[in-house]
Amino acid sequence: MRRTRFDDAACPIARSLDQIGDWWSLLIVRDALDGARRFTEFQKRLGLAKNILSARLSKLVAHGILRLEPASDGSAYQEYVLTEKGESLRLVLMALRQWGEDFLFAPDDRPLPHVVKASGKPLGPLEITHPKPRKLGPRDVEVLKELDD
Amino acid sequence: MRRTRFDDAACPIARSLDQIGDWWSLLIVRDALDGARRFTEFQKRLGLAKNILSARLSKLVAHGILRLEPASDGSAYQEYVLTEKGESLRLVLMALRQWGEDFLFAPDDRPLPHVVKASGKPLGPLEITHPKPRKLGPRDVEVLKELDD
Repeated sequence: MRRTRFDDAACPIARSLDQIGDWWSLLIVRDALDGARRFTEFQKRLGLAKNILSARLSKLVAHGILRLEPASDGSAYQEYVLTEKGESLRLVLMALRQWGEDFLFAPDDRPLPHVVKASGKPLGPLEITHPKPRKLGPRDVEVLKELDD
Repeated sequence: MRRTRFDDAACPIARSLDQIGDWWSLLIVRDALDGARRFTEFQKRLGLAKNILSARLSKLVAHGILRLEPASDGSAYQEYVLTEKGESLRLVLMALRQWGEDFLFAPDDRPLPHVVKASGKPLGPLEITHPKPRKLGPRDVEVLKELDD
């Protein structure tokens, strides 16, 4: 299928998908958030052909989602480290995870929860909230078509 | 590229990407959340070839994200309506939108905000919160590797 470019689009969802809209990229970011840093680690976790992994990593570096750093152990290897832009994809992955947990698992087969690092306490679900927290459903939200003056 | 199936994966992110991991599907869901219901509406909004749109819509129906209903105006057409599972992708799209807004737009070129339908008031940002609301950063979260007894 011909790949369409969305990066000139006015829609922020389309622009985001232009940078991370192939799932390998999101799975690489998932594993980076989980501590993977080296090419061989990503390869082992994802079981992905070297040339494909290499292309995806280069694209993520070009988009400023990962950056290259000298290896933390002083060896000659380079490591892939998430930038702030990359770390911020945590929320996208949490939303994907939550949707998967809610709709794609049997009740007795739920995956392990996200926890707060400092306390080990499970997080509550991601929710759409008012500026003053009040739970909203997906139908309570709409996108403005124009701004009032 | 060979398409790998993730639906047997233990990871809820991988399972989610197996169902909605090609971006056309997410853009179709975006437009459905924005009110599109008919084949011709989706085609006009997305500028997508009929055969590709048809395949994507069928896949979304097969996954229970959209369902087919008789046209609301009593004509012979059928309409694509989001299920609860489909509506719940709002959170994933909001997370993608927020990331795009934060990192892919110039400050003077920000897209229009999401608002609460009932009040027209802009939403606050999606945030990772404790069960008792307290803002957490992306680094405060980790995924458990095993459950304590």
